[in-house]
Amino acid sequence: MQQRSVTHHCGLFGIYGHDEAVFLTHLGLHALQHRGQESAAIVSSNGQTLQKRGGMGLVKDVFTRRDLGEIHGHMAIGHVRYSTTGSCSDVNVQPLLFSCAAGPVAIAHNGNLINAALLRRQYEDFGHIFQTTNDTEVIIHLLAKPAHQSRQNPLVHVLNHLQGAYSLLLLFPDRMVAVRDPLGFRPLCLGRLGGAVVVASETNAFDLVDAEYERDVEPGEIVTISDEGVQSRRFGGDVPHTAACIFEQIYFADPSSRVFGENVHLVRVAMGARLAEESPADGDLVVPIPTCAQCAAIGFSRQTGIPYGRAFTTSHYAGRSFIMPTQSERDTAVKMKLNVIKDAVAGRRLVVVEDSVVRGTTTRGKISALRRAGAKEIHLRVASPPIRHGCYFGIDFPQQDKLVAYQRSVEEVRAFLEVDSLAYLSLEGMLSCVRMPPRDYCTACFSGRYPIDVTEPVDKFSLERRQLRMFGSAGADVPGPPAGAGRRAVPGAVSTP
Amino acid sequence: MQQRSVTHHCGLFGIYGHDEAVFLTHLGLHALQHRGQESAAIVSSNGQTLQKRGGMGLVKDVFTRRDLGEIHGHMAIGHVRYSTTGSCSDVNVQPLLFSCAAGPVAIAHNGNLINAALLRRQYEDFGHIFQTTNDTEVIIHLLAKPAHQSRQNPLVHVLNHLQGAYSLLLLFPDRMVAVRDPLGFRPLCLGRLGGAVVVASETNAFDLVDAEYERDVEPGEIVTISDEGVQSRRFGGDVPHTAACIFEQIYFADPSSRVFGENVHLVRVAMGARLAEESPADGDLVVPIPTCAQCAAIGFSRQTGIPYGRAFTTSHYAGRSFIMPTQSERDTAVKMKLNVIKDAVAGRRLVVVEDSVVRGTTTRGKISALRRAGAKEIHLRVASPPIRHGCYFGIDFPQQDKLVAYQRSVEEVRAFLEVDSLAYLSLEGMLSCVRMPPRDYCTACFSGRYPIDVTEPVDKFSLERRQLRMFGSAGADVPGPPAGAGRRAVPGAVSTP
Amino acid sequence: MQQRSVTHHCGLFGIYGHDEAVFLTHLGLHALQHRGQESAAIVSSNGQTLQKRGGMGLVKDVFTRRDLGEIHGHMAIGHVRYSTTGSCSDVNVQPLLFSCAAGPVAIAHNGNLINAALLRRQYEDFGHIFQTTNDTEVIIHLLAKPAHQSRQNPLVHVLNHLQGAYSLLLLFPDRMVAVRDPLGFRPLCLGRLGGAVVVASETNAFDLVDAEYERDVEPGEIVTISDEGVQSRRFGGDVPHTAACIFEQIYFADPSSRVFGENVHLVRVAMGARLAEESPADGDLVVPIPTCAQCAAIGFSRQTGIPYGRAFTTSHYAGRSFIMPTQSERDTAVKMKLNVIKDAVAGRRLVVVEDSVVRGTTTRGKISALRRAGAKEIHLRVASPPIRHGCYFGIDFPQQDKLVAYQRSVEEVRAFLEVDSLAYLSLEGMLSCVRMPPRDYCTACFSGRYPIDVTEPVDKFSLERRQLRMFGSAGADVPGPPAGAGRRAVPGAVSTP
Amino acid sequence: MQQRSVTHHCGLFGIYGHDEAVFLTHLGLHALQHRGQESAAIVSSNGQTLQKRGGMGLVKDVFTRRDLGEIHGHMAIGHVRYSTTGSCSDVNVQPLLFSCAAGPVAIAHNGNLINAALLRRQYEDFGHIFQTTNDTEVIIHLLAKPAHQSRQNPLVHVLNHLQGAYSLLLLFPDRMVAVRDPLGFRPLCLGRLGGAVVVASETNAFDLVDAEYERDVEPGEIVTISDEGVQSRRFGGDVPHTAACIFEQIYFADPSSRVFGENVHLVRVAMGARLAEESPADGDLVVPIPTCAQCAAIGFSRQTGIPYGRAFTTSHYAGRSFIMPTQSERDTAVKMKLNVIKDAVAGRRLVVVEDSVVRGTTTRGKISALRRAGAKEIHLRVASPPIRHGCYFGIDFPQQDKLVAYQRSVEEVRAFLEVDSLAYLSLEGMLSCVRMPPRDYCTACFSGRYPIDVTEPVDKFSLERRQLRMFGSAGADVPGPPAGAGRRAVPGAVSTP
Repeated sequence: MQQRSVTHHCGLFGIYGHDEAVFLTHLGLHALQHRGQESAAIVSSNGQTLQKRGGMGLVKDVFTRRDLGEIHGHMAIGHVRYSTTGSCSDVNVQPLLFSCAAGPVAIAHNGNLINAALLRRQYEDFGHIFQTTNDTEVIIHLLAKPAHQSRQNPLVHVLNHLQGAYSLLLLFPDRMVAVRDPLGFRPLCLGRLGGAVVVASETNAFDLVDAEYERDVEPGEIVTISDEGVQSRRFGGDVPHTAACIFEQIYFADPSSRVFGENVHLVRVAMGARLAEESPADGDLVVPIPTCAQCAAIGFSRQTGIPYGRAFTTSHYAGRSFIMPTQSERDTAVKMKLNVIKDAVAGRRLVVVEDSVVRGTTTRGKISALRRAGAKEIHLRVASPPIRHGCYFGIDFPQQDKLVAYQRSVEEVRAFLEVDSLAYLSLEGMLSCVRMPPRDYCTACFSGRYPIDVTEPVDKFSLERRQLRMFGSAGADVPGPPAGAGRRAVPGAVSTP
Repeated sequence: MQQRSVTHHCGLFGIYGHDEAVFLTHLGLHALQHRGQESAAIVSSNGQTLQKRGGMGLVKDVFTRRDLGEIHGHMAIGHVRYSTTGSCSDVNVQPLLFSCAAGPVAIAHNGNLINAALLRRQYEDFGHIFQTTNDTEVIIHLLAKPAHQSRQNPLVHVLNHLQGAYSLLLLFPDRMVAVRDPLGFRPLCLGRLGGAVVVASETNAFDLVDAEYERDVEPGEIVTISDEGVQSRRFGGDVPHTAACIFEQIYFADPSSRVFGENVHLVRVAMGARLAEESPADGDLVVPIPTCAQCAAIGFSRQTGIPYGRAFTTSHYAGRSFIMPTQSERDTAVKMKLNVIKDAVAGRRLVVVEDSVVRGTTTRGKISALRRAGAKEIHLRVASPPIRHGCYFGIDFPQQDKLVAYQRSVEEVRAFLEVDSLAYLSLEGMLSCVRMPPRDYCTACFSGRYPIDVTEPVDKFSLERRQLRMFGSAGADVPGPPAGAGRRAVPGAVSTP
Repeated sequence: MQQRSVTHHCGLFGIYGHDEAVFLTHLGLHALQHRGQESAAIVSSNGQTLQKRGGMGLVKDVFTRRDLGEIHGHMAIGHVRYSTTGSCSDVNVQPLLFSCAAGPVAIAHNGNLINAALLRRQYEDFGHIFQTTNDTEVIIHLLAKPAHQSRQNPLVHVLNHLQGAYSLLLLFPDRMVAVRDPLGFRPLCLGRLGGAVVVASETNAFDLVDAEYERDVEPGEIVTISDEGVQSRRFGGDVPHTAACIFEQIYFADPSSRVFGENVHLVRVAMGARLAEESPADGDLVVPIPTCAQCAAIGFSRQTGIPYGRAFTTSHYAGRSFIMPTQSERDTAVKMKLNVIKDAVAGRRLVVVEDSVVRGTTTRGKISALRRAGAKEIHLRVASPPIRHGCYFGIDFPQQDKLVAYQRSVEEVRAFLEVDSLAYLSLEGMLSCVRMPPRDYCTACFSGRYPIDVTEPVDKFSLERRQLRMFGSAGADVPGPPAGAGRRAVPGAVSTP
Repeated sequence: MQQRSVTHHCGLFGIYGHDEAVFLTHLGLHALQHRGQESAAIVSSNGQTLQKRGGMGLVKDVFTRRDLGEIHGHMAIGHVRYSTTGSCSDVNVQPLLFSCAAGPVAIAHNGNLINAALLRRQYEDFGHIFQTTNDTEVIIHLLAKPAHQSRQNPLVHVLNHLQGAYSLLLLFPDRMVAVRDPLGFRPLCLGRLGGAVVVASETNAFDLVDAEYERDVEPGEIVTISDEGVQSRRFGGDVPHTAACIFEQIYFADPSSRVFGENVHLVRVAMGARLAEESPADGDLVVPIPTCAQCAAIGFSRQTGIPYGRAFTTSHYAGRSFIMPTQSERDTAVKMKLNVIKDAVAGRRLVVVEDSVVRGTTTRGKISALRRAGAKEIHLRVASPPIRHGCYFGIDFPQQDKLVAYQRSVEEVRAFLEVDSLAYLSLEGMLSCVRMPPRDYCTACFSGRYPIDVTEPVDKFSLERRQLRMFGSAGADVPGPPAGAGRRAVPGAVSTP
């Protein structure tokens, strides 16, 4: 686990059939904290009533012991979420909790729906009202629709409307339901803790609560856990291949987790070794950029025989700093977290290993610090291919033109980062280090090959950016809707504390 | 203003056309704090976007300066709310903020809808989802309905569906709308602050922001304030009489406010005087139970010539106390707020004036304290009639059998309160002290004559108490719905932090 | 009790011989909150160890239940303190807790020592170090002095060094000691709660903990409470008369308290009546400036027969307000606390009763508000004489030239306050309303007759304002010490969080 | 930097001659946070007045931006402190700030005085009072003594009274003084930041504020920084050798720091390599116990050629957890911080490298976790000798009988830790990895050879544990003082919030 800088992501945890369901969910969310630091919440059920506690912030700060004692039940689901400041708001804290004709329901979502804006517009036209700005709320509207409720299997019917990435946990008064979309973009695992069933985005959450990993929820599978046991259904029909997010292996998941059927640390070590094979470097020391790249650096060192070393120390206490007006807040924040070990670096030829490079600015800052500390040569090796494309399936990459490798050659990136040499792992090399066939991974951020057609570009703010048509007024449209954004302008930004 | 013990109530404030709309709304809510201490929030509009800040607690605690600086606009509405612990929850904090096809909208409500549960069930059956447990959300669902939106005047059409008490403030991106139900249960006033228009539950909020009172929003009136000025529409048709809540005059409103067209303090003084006429008492001193009953005691003293005095001091600092296990938390809390002035009381014959008696327990405690301090005689005079009936229009009285005067004669109440004599103001006497004709006031809590037929008893928890039918399951009803509560069991309790 | 604006004061509470000593002290401090709102702390003893909890703020905010559970013992003393912002600091929070050769000791002080600066200088010259900026610390230094400890009765010996006003509570591991200076400036009372002994600045604290008032600690008395019972000693020799602070009766003390042997409320009522005798006024209504002046207004009304009324309502919720840049923060704060009842005031001839007038600015603001509300005439009657002199004995009056009556005739004050007529209670009139002979009261703030010679003017910041001489340096004095302020410049301002 | 479990330590930072002295000190304390997490404070001087801000907790939590803006000056000193719960208290937060005859002074101390209790007793007998329970306060009492102040050089005179370890920073209104005891137990470094002079316990603080390391303060050196520049004096006479704490190199200091003239990381790598030479092991992977032992593991891997690997991931978010009653809080806390990478460990022969083993319980827990994850063999290599003796010079080791190696052979420790083999680095091996001659290091915790005679055992609570003699009473001693603990019983425990 490490502190992340540029990503949008979520983590899910659920448990059914344990007297301490709420406390265990709280622990599980701790383990998944690296998947989302913006908000955290838990919804429990005692068989009849759903209760929610949570808010904005880290798991350790959001919940008090009193909070956890106030909600009860033998089942619970929890969620951690990351997003950038603009759209963070209490009302968006998941799991979302609603009431509809069929009763109360809570939902937690990891992923991104590419047709959420379209569905929302349709439902608003039916007279539905929306209280959040996230794409998850639309799933509940679909579920609540009487025409859907009257179906043999309402949930399957609803899921068939959704397009995009979604690992879901739903909590009804009497049952917990885990869903993974047919392409299986995001991980979701099943485990056992004595007689209880646990579900989590990553297996490291099982380790913390002493649960045993059992299997992954399969792409296109609905797992329903109730007093009648664990029941599995399939939906979504036959898909020729899945689209597991390779970036989970490269960067997101905790190294101790098993994701998509294999251990993240070992995958990363293999990628580092493969990178060394493809693009060896001559140096005195292999050093990782802390702390994500340790695994890849271990692989690189092992393959090349160049000794593994440290160039940085990391502070565990870094918090806000109140800096002088003349300082750069960003630089200070980085320096508070990382300090170069000058004597280990001065006069050395360094092979610096990084897991991935997104904007390049942070990496450049660290390279520059190494240079100032007296490094003689710096050879950067990146254990993944250049990122050149946006993600529509749950990762919050910056806009495409902010990606350092966008429309830049490797040599141009090298010049930008001011290193003596630069090499990326090849797409093929990367895919050779994982278990499943290449076509079963989504590599869109590297390759631009999207597993689902993405005609209308959506980004995190698309639900918020839609513009206003006045209530009961003659539809005088305020400037805004991009041509083709829909047959008419749609309602406006809503932000709540 | 004083600290209230047994009531459920709300206060509304809005302003249109002022650069400091948010700060002024914040001030206005301070003035209305006595109408609701559970939660407070503000929604502003800058013409395009609605933004909300607020939370659980007192106005002074809920908002930080930063909060107020983060939301912008030249119009804003605010709300303070009281309810008992069980159902207090962030998600219920008003103004509620939603998005629907016609755009974003915020709503703040003072009152109570008696057909809310019914309407909610209908809408849930249409597939709508609900996020709060309060009756206000249903209004937005009605507004969002396409069939309603397509009407010539959607808001009028929607209001015609509502049954009960509602003073409303709605905020759309481009306008503020103030509504008072056709029977005018709850007050709502219009004022001016320079070029800006202000709306508030009570005129004391105008005083604090230096606005001028202009007139009341009329029962059955919709006032729309926008760039096109202040426009008034009527709805609800002809009603033979109104139903202004007489309890606003007796207890709720601040003595400095003008409510239903006349000053609260003067009304209370008149009631005290009339009480003295109807039921004089022989004593050395007229003392009010602090602090509400001061006005009535002044009237009583003036009418009888018995000197006005003080029997208690009140602490302004009373907060939580951490008491010993052997103490009664409730008793200590009362004692921390009120202390008897023993030397003023000992050996005296006291005429104690109270504005109203609800449960009787608090009054009995105070009487008992006076007795222990050595009062020779205690004659209790209550400046309103006995409360014997529940309220369905926005006051949170306890259950009927908790009312001290329920099925008790005045003599039985006297014995319970342990006073030497007891008299209440007569219904006629009370109504003779106010300006409008008797039939234009709702006196249901005293008389049992409800201005609207209330067949299905509703209370504050009725929306929360409805029971569960499982999602997609065969409708196995959990025990619960009272016979005749509806054609089927309906969905369940939802509580959120 | 009311919120005070211009005063510096403290409150003491102690209890010996009760298992719940800490919780009861906490309650007692609640009752005394009106005597000091800046800080609060409690020190307990379990017979061996002294433990302290407390901090800056109101009693209700300073202590958590956990705090109170962490300190133990069958005896405890507590202190509430008021002072202006400049010098408020954690390190000054009383009771002060120290360790010296004779063991640990805690001390709480109400009053002001006029020779503290002198004594402090002497002790610093002996090599002592000081950690606080308040005058209380010097008492401990005197106590710790071996020459004093070797005396037959160290405490008596030490007290004989002190000049000024001091009601003290000291806590040693095995006993609690209550002291009142020989002139008895500040009140201090003894009571019983079952087998326990309680001490408090005012008897209203006894009421809250259900203790019985027994007697005052006498001027020049040391009361020691230990396992050997309650022992009394005298010190300070014969004094011809005492100097009980008359301002306690006029303004400080809670109306329900018994102070200097009589009830505060009744004293104030008598002063109001006497004022009416001396300076009647023709008017329609007698109204108090809330909330202190209620008692005097009752007396005035009773004496004149002019009806008692209300001109203001007061908010119990007033807190910080975040005002607009264009507003005056001070005006808004006042308005948030008080609102004029316009309809009760308009067109009326008001006799406004105030207990005392210090700076005059607040009173002027309230008068102005009444005028704007339409009062026809305003006759101000002040139930104490003009304040024209500073206090050196524990009241934090503003500097002399800030007193509205300083070098102003009554007519000039009337003009400043913009009232139609103004009258103060005479010194003789005031003294005729209290029990003890006139010479036993300190009336210095009115009369300028100080009961102790005050040659060197001291104010609250005198200990902080002394200037620096550098350590080990050649005594290069920084500019500062007023000529004659002492034989040399002395060390400097120390402020801590 | 890493989270420490068993140590007592402090960090110092000071700066003279910079407009942003307070903000830079705040940053410097961030860098030194690993040296103390219990409390943090800063004292600044503007040439005349000393001001303090700080409190209990981490640097990031203790200070608000407002705090830092409220204290001013071009010089400042700061302190971070660690101690166990029992004695943590606001009053002990360093730098301590006092006022004495010579003026105000602040002091910050890293180390431990072995004659503090003795000196304190003497001063209490002179009549001095103490407000803290830490040994630092006594230094101020010595400084304040007139006999000392009259000396040519008061500070030198005072330091000659002190026995033990002390790196000090003192702040007077006009100057900053840095002191290192004659044996130089604790580090203290001088640097430059433009025209400003900086002082810090470790050079990594210089890196964060962009200062340049210049030299160490020498053992027995007083460095005075004022407007007259940097002046150096010697004190303490000739000492045959110094006593630099070798544990700073092994565990305390940040790997990026230069301590006692050489880089900590490189020393640790050398120790790991030397350990491999002395006690090689046959295994598949060399893995460090996170995160301190990384450096030594790198050295071990490099020397043996066995690949470096990871066995654990560490969480950066670990905070309090609210656990179930049936869980062990301690185990959960460890698991929240560390998770085993099962797939990297299962079936492998691990060479686990640890920097040092104190109690052994935490190490045993981690070994056990590796075993449960399926490690085939576990060979533990500890890069320092067995710890068998207490420290009297500033490290808070547990009591001797809690040390795992106390009275246990290496084989017995191996059995306790349940590893397949165990080897420690030899004392000679350890000393061969550092720059200075062996006799210039204190190795007492390993060797039992104390550089100063320690006849009277002192521990952290010795100042608090002394017992009570009653004030003014006949010295009835409460049970307590160990025989020989002093000529008489001395005063008692004082604890404050």
